[in-house]
Amino acid sequence: MTAPRYVYAFDEAVPGGRELLGGKGIGLAEMTELGVPVPAGFTITTEACRAAMALGRAPDGLDAEVDEHVGRLEQRAGKRFGDPKDPLLVSVRSGAAVSMPGMMDTILNLGLNDVAVEGLARTTGNARFARDSYRRLIQMFGEVVEGIDGHRFEQSLADLKSKRRAAQDTDLTAEDLAELIETYKATYRESTGGEFPQDARDQLRRAVRAVFDSWGNPRAQVYRRAHRIPDDLGTAVNVVQMVFGNKGEDCGTGVCFTRDPSTGGQGLYGEFLANAQGEDVVAGIRTPEPLEAMQARLPKAYEQLLGTMRRLEEHYRDMQDIEFTVEEGRLYLLQTRAAKRTAAAGLKAAVDMVDEGLISREDAIARIDPAQLDQLLHPMLDPNEQYDVAATGLNASPGAASGSIVFDADTAAERGEREDVILVRWETTPDDIHGMIAAKGILTVHGGMTSHAAVVARGMGKPCVAGCEALSLDLKAGVARIGEHELREGDPLTIDGGTGRVIVGPVRLVPPQINEDFQTVLGWADDVRRLKVRANADTPEDAVRARAFGAEGIGLCRTEHMFFGDERLPVVQEMIMARDEQGRRSALDRLLPMQQSDFEGIFEAMAGLPVTIRLLDPPLHEFLPAFDEAPEEMRERIKQLQESNPMLGTRGCRLGLQFPEIYEMQVRAIVRAAKVVRDKTGEAPLVEIMHPLVGFAEELRRLRALTVAVAAEENDVEYLCGTMIELPRACIRADEIAEHADFFSFGTNDLTQTALGFSRDDAEGKFLTHYLEGGVLERNPFETLDQSGVGDLMQIAVERGRGAKAHLKLGICGEHGGEPASVAFCHELGLDYVSCSPFRVPLARLAAAQAALAETGAAYVAAGG
Amino acid sequence: MTAPRYVYAFDEAVPGGRELLGGKGIGLAEMTELGVPVPAGFTITTEACRAAMALGRAPDGLDAEVDEHVGRLEQRAGKRFGDPKDPLLVSVRSGAAVSMPGMMDTILNLGLNDVAVEGLARTTGNARFARDSYRRLIQMFGEVVEGIDGHRFEQSLADLKSKRRAAQDTDLTAEDLAELIETYKATYRESTGGEFPQDARDQLRRAVRAVFDSWGNPRAQVYRRAHRIPDDLGTAVNVVQMVFGNKGEDCGTGVCFTRDPSTGGQGLYGEFLANAQGEDVVAGIRTPEPLEAMQARLPKAYEQLLGTMRRLEEHYRDMQDIEFTVEEGRLYLLQTRAAKRTAAAGLKAAVDMVDEGLISREDAIARIDPAQLDQLLHPMLDPNEQYDVAATGLNASPGAASGSIVFDADTAAERGEREDVILVRWETTPDDIHGMIAAKGILTVHGGMTSHAAVVARGMGKPCVAGCEALSLDLKAGVARIGEHELREGDPLTIDGGTGRVIVGPVRLVPPQINEDFQTVLGWADDVRRLKVRANADTPEDAVRARAFGAEGIGLCRTEHMFFGDERLPVVQEMIMARDEQGRRSALDRLLPMQQSDFEGIFEAMAGLPVTIRLLDPPLHEFLPAFDEAPEEMRERIKQLQESNPMLGTRGCRLGLQFPEIYEMQVRAIVRAAKVVRDKTGEAPLVEIMHPLVGFAEELRRLRALTVAVAAEENDVEYLCGTMIELPRACIRADEIAEHADFFSFGTNDLTQTALGFSRDDAEGKFLTHYLEGGVLERNPFETLDQSGVGDLMQIAVERGRGAKAHLKLGICGEHGGEPASVAFCHELGLDYVSCSPFRVPLARLAAAQAALAETGAAYVAAGG
Repeated sequence: MTAPRYVYAFDEAVPGGRELLGGKGIGLAEMTELGVPVPAGFTITTEACRAAMALGRAPDGLDAEVDEHVGRLEQRAGKRFGDPKDPLLVSVRSGAAVSMPGMMDTILNLGLNDVAVEGLARTTGNARFARDSYRRLIQMFGEVVEGIDGHRFEQSLADLKSKRRAAQDTDLTAEDLAELIETYKATYRESTGGEFPQDARDQLRRAVRAVFDSWGNPRAQVYRRAHRIPDDLGTAVNVVQMVFGNKGEDCGTGVCFTRDPSTGGQGLYGEFLANAQGEDVVAGIRTPEPLEAMQARLPKAYEQLLGTMRRLEEHYRDMQDIEFTVEEGRLYLLQTRAAKRTAAAGLKAAVDMVDEGLISREDAIARIDPAQLDQLLHPMLDPNEQYDVAATGLNASPGAASGSIVFDADTAAERGEREDVILVRWETTPDDIHGMIAAKGILTVHGGMTSHAAVVARGMGKPCVAGCEALSLDLKAGVARIGEHELREGDPLTIDGGTGRVIVGPVRLVPPQINEDFQTVLGWADDVRRLKVRANADTPEDAVRARAFGAEGIGLCRTEHMFFGDERLPVVQEMIMARDEQGRRSALDRLLPMQQSDFEGIFEAMAGLPVTIRLLDPPLHEFLPAFDEAPEEMRERIKQLQESNPMLGTRGCRLGLQFPEIYEMQVRAIVRAAKVVRDKTGEAPLVEIMHPLVGFAEELRRLRALTVAVAAEENDVEYLCGTMIELPRACIRADEIAEHADFFSFGTNDLTQTALGFSRDDAEGKFLTHYLEGGVLERNPFETLDQSGVGDLMQIAVERGRGAKAHLKLGICGEHGGEPASVAFCHELGLDYVSCSPFRVPLARLAAAQAALAETGAAYVAAGG
Repeated sequence: MTAPRYVYAFDEAVPGGRELLGGKGIGLAEMTELGVPVPAGFTITTEACRAAMALGRAPDGLDAEVDEHVGRLEQRAGKRFGDPKDPLLVSVRSGAAVSMPGMMDTILNLGLNDVAVEGLARTTGNARFARDSYRRLIQMFGEVVEGIDGHRFEQSLADLKSKRRAAQDTDLTAEDLAELIETYKATYRESTGGEFPQDARDQLRRAVRAVFDSWGNPRAQVYRRAHRIPDDLGTAVNVVQMVFGNKGEDCGTGVCFTRDPSTGGQGLYGEFLANAQGEDVVAGIRTPEPLEAMQARLPKAYEQLLGTMRRLEEHYRDMQDIEFTVEEGRLYLLQTRAAKRTAAAGLKAAVDMVDEGLISREDAIARIDPAQLDQLLHPMLDPNEQYDVAATGLNASPGAASGSIVFDADTAAERGEREDVILVRWETTPDDIHGMIAAKGILTVHGGMTSHAAVVARGMGKPCVAGCEALSLDLKAGVARIGEHELREGDPLTIDGGTGRVIVGPVRLVPPQINEDFQTVLGWADDVRRLKVRANADTPEDAVRARAFGAEGIGLCRTEHMFFGDERLPVVQEMIMARDEQGRRSALDRLLPMQQSDFEGIFEAMAGLPVTIRLLDPPLHEFLPAFDEAPEEMRERIKQLQESNPMLGTRGCRLGLQFPEIYEMQVRAIVRAAKVVRDKTGEAPLVEIMHPLVGFAEELRRLRALTVAVAAEENDVEYLCGTMIELPRACIRADEIAEHADFFSFGTNDLTQTALGFSRDDAEGKFLTHYLEGGVLERNPFETLDQSGVGDLMQIAVERGRGAKAHLKLGICGEHGGEPASVAFCHELGLDYVSCSPFRVPLARLAAAQAALAETGAAYVAAGG
């Protein structure tokens, strides 16, 4: 048996794809195959890594294969690896099949040693560059291969700079760098007990081994476990010949996009820097020119680049982000990948590519990231406004907000009633919730993407910039400082949660809009999807907005929202305080016409589309003031109604069964409203009456009987009668419940709370945040449906419910109804519709189409790049 | 096609059993077949009832069949139905297959009319009796057949008594009764517009039709729905010849038991009244003699009765409760049924019957009602004590308690620390919980078996007498009145929750005991059952008690109980108040030896048996004082720890993951204790470490790693590591969780709370009580497992858990573990053990055996009777 082959050059035909060569390796091989100029190099396979892990050493034959491929590189380059005069240099890069943080990334400039560095200095005419390359090699090698603490190298560099009064690394001279190399080598010696390896092949062998080992490091392990990546995949290793864009005037480096990543517009977009390395661009010591400037300087390479860009876009059928270097007139592509783009650019590029015949409509739909579209569905900074960005934090929750600064939640709650306020805190806690509700936007100094502020703000759909460390607060003095700005309560501030930008002063905002490209893509999506998309809307205004966003009905109209409001709340409180049914009925009689008029408005707005109305759900104490603030005569009743776990208490249909007169009033208001609208418009509203929190079939049997009886007393309006499915028991006994239901609507917020035993109020910002930070959970189950837990319960409910009643109508009205991954899951479950907040309706339309396409495999989704 | 046959005489061979003839009909037919003397009669089948319901009238041929059978009765009796001189009289009784409240029960004396009543007066020589029988017929017939309000008849009777200054009904003379008959007939006329029917066959036809109709009355419908009895079963009707024990000295009536129903002792037990009717016994106008007195008066009938008693006990293989009448020297059995008996009597009779060879051991096990045994497992009134029962209420929660009266929960909580108190309230509310916890027993004036007091007391296993309406409270004066007694706070009072008795003054109590018969039956049960039975025990004392009751291990040791106690709580609070891990560890170091010593005691007590220890479960705020009572420096922390739904908050393994040092300390204390006990006794404790509230496999994976790491640091003690299954998600993903678990223990208390969305604190006494009272739910799911909801989730968990790990050990440690129906369900599920409170261990042993017998069908369970 011959030993397996472990190494493939980029230009070889390879028996295996991404699994064998890793993502980087397959990309380099593909570009080579396309005839795109890339530096020469080779890939050591994941199989070699697996063998090394199993053996605890390099497998037999690997070193010989690597030597052979290095030999080919030498032959092709006309340079020798380790040559003291004109050395061949290579980089070593890990590249697993799935990109993964925590692994060793890159060691550049392998092949340099004490002698070769001077050879490189001579051939490039740049001793500073050569020595800087060498000191970087020692540092990267020391850290990655030998595990030396990187701070030791950084400290030496800082000490030298301070000694030389050098502001930038680049202010150090070639002589300074020679001194630094000696310091680095001493550090290496002290830490390892040996000298920095002078033999190039020895450097390479040890670097490859370090990549293999990094597969098993704890951070990578945690990541794999969290993402369910098998531990035995292993990583590939890429060895790539170094190219330099700073060898003279026939050299240069640049970055370009095949379309404008901001707008999606056609045409070149990029930057070029002559006689420079990529690092120079990053360090900002010289200002790059527009890409077009390359045409005059390096016309041949420029033409070649244009052709290559076209070639790559055609091949990957997507906008590309390309890094290139020109060495002595020769173009090398170092990387190409799908370009990061704004949501608007993504839409425009997709629509254009369909027009150009590059991709199909299905491809275009599949291409758009619905989560990114969220950016377009919140108020934005007016693009015509001028402003300075004072600081940037984490883009924790999208949308822009402008208002007066407040420093505490109470003030936010108070001032928020009169004006727009931005709540600025070190970090938020659950005690700040009332302030967060009242504020237009939230800005915190500390905290990450899963901090309390971020999680809660996203949940509320409210703009938030978190972790803006450039900000400092002096709460005693009532001052916030950003750079030279000193801001006090009431001063105007603007944040953009989609980008993390913080702007001192007011900025005009523009409301969310669905531009032509967006409309085009959504139109295509509507042709493709099977799931209907409805909106959650409680008022006629919401209903109008929902329709404008393309909602095909209302999936959740929360009637309790109609119980608040200045003229209504006192009547509701009177109903709650009543000593007997008689007293309750008297108050309810006065509420009835108010509810009825709300329903009329909603029915009119949604003419021809279904409207699902949920009867009263929250516990009654939510309509009374807090105990401490309540008048004396209310306190006893408030105490009676207090519950230790209101989430699991007297609410939903439990209220409706205990005080049937409440639901009677609501049903009466609904059917009367339906009749009025039918008589007025000639079209009968499609009314769906929904009973919340049902866990037992008997509950729904009784409530259906109540509904039927009241409706029969009133008139001949048609309606459906159904239930929320939001308790685990309701899922389990969906068969029995279905007998009394025309439809089910999954309330996945409460179903998540009960199935997981997570009180949302107590989890977010508390133990759930701890779980997300610590990696116990990957995703917040209140944002993305817990498919394997809550989703499995839903599946049981679908099977049992439809088993008992084949044509049972099924929907979802939890917040997950607007989250793309959850929408896909609902499609797979076979639901009839999803319902979400009006602003998320376009996302849901797109996600539903993507789910339908994924099922049929009709769309081409670009991989790799 | 011939018409179906609708009527069968008691002495005919019948093609069909209970379904066709109903319970009463089959019993009368069986006794007739056995040769036991019963009055002649016949049964109209349930099929006739179904046909009548479908047709809305009597089916064709029914009247003719009934007439024919009446003819046979006449022939046999030598009397004619409706005969004016010596009429044949019959009773009409409903009798469905399942006994059911709400249906029409009985009409006696059919066949009497204005003329026949005087014939009866003459033949019996008792005009008073004859007329009383007639007026009763008019009343019963009027109420049941014609729906006349019974109060109208009662009022006429009361008016007449008042007019005659008669204290008792029996003080009315024959002449008075003649007047009453006229009044009744007038009432009948006014209400129906017609005369009371004088034709006997017409009376009979209408009575039969009324029984059929009563099947559909609302109360019966509700009952059937609640008990899942199909609506189309229908009821049978029994027509029985009347016999009279008051025709002279060769007549009499009596009641007897085949064994002593109080003790179970062998030998006759009964009462006899010569020349009397059963009603005379009930009315209490004459004092019955012991059964033996019959021997001298009616020696032949007496001998026949003895033979019949033996015959019936042998046939039914169970203790019988028999009603009989002797008419002119002839014995008639009117009824035989399984005798109601005390728990002790049931045990003794069962053991004796096995000795006598009458039943098998399996029969004996199957015969005992575990719920009734509960009476024997609480403190009881000392049977040697003398006391007067001042009043009787509902036997809401078994056990006796004696102590000082208190009238409010706060006083109960305060005095309860120093002495035994009985909490006396109009009714209890959730605000009284702390007082109920502190009290030894609870007595309420209002409320039924599902009132707050009853439900909560049963949940606590605490004696409770509810609905004692004879008691009145004057809380302002601080006085309770029962009859002539006036009681004040601190006065001694005794209650017996097993019988509902209330006794003024102290009574000595005796601890629960397992007598010899009980031990015998439990020994047999142990031979039969497959399920192991463990106890929930938190202290060495509990552990010793559990063993004494036959527990085969500890299924739940709650470590948080060890965190209370005067010397510990301050240290626990210090741990909670600590600003950092360092501070927590310092406090935990001091708690460790205390926990260790508790574990040592428990391990020693349970030598050789497994002990499952649950790590800290409750939210930390439970260890801090209430906000209002806390010192200033604690308040901020208390506020931080407050949660809106603590049931769904930071508790269980969420605590363990956030503060791993707590669980580390506990694991360390466990393994150190195990080593100490092993070294001391030479036997290694069987330690099972249990992590609470796991919902995700990753939680348990981490906690298992923590457990293994700490144990490895300590010593080589063996242990199992497992988890509670108490969240719906844990059931659903039991497959993944099983990978990290050696065992599962179902925590059905919390699983019920989360699966149903019922907070126990907020449900019981609130909406759950409303549900139970209103029939939405039949049973309290916290007492009896909700098999179709929670049980189905458990089944999913068992299937998925064992699917992933075939030999996964499975148990239950919720309170359902001691409830007989739930134990049976756990057996069917295939669990390995149930765990319950020590006092309930004997019940669980018996219930487990019964479940095993039910599965194999090895026991004979007497039906009917």
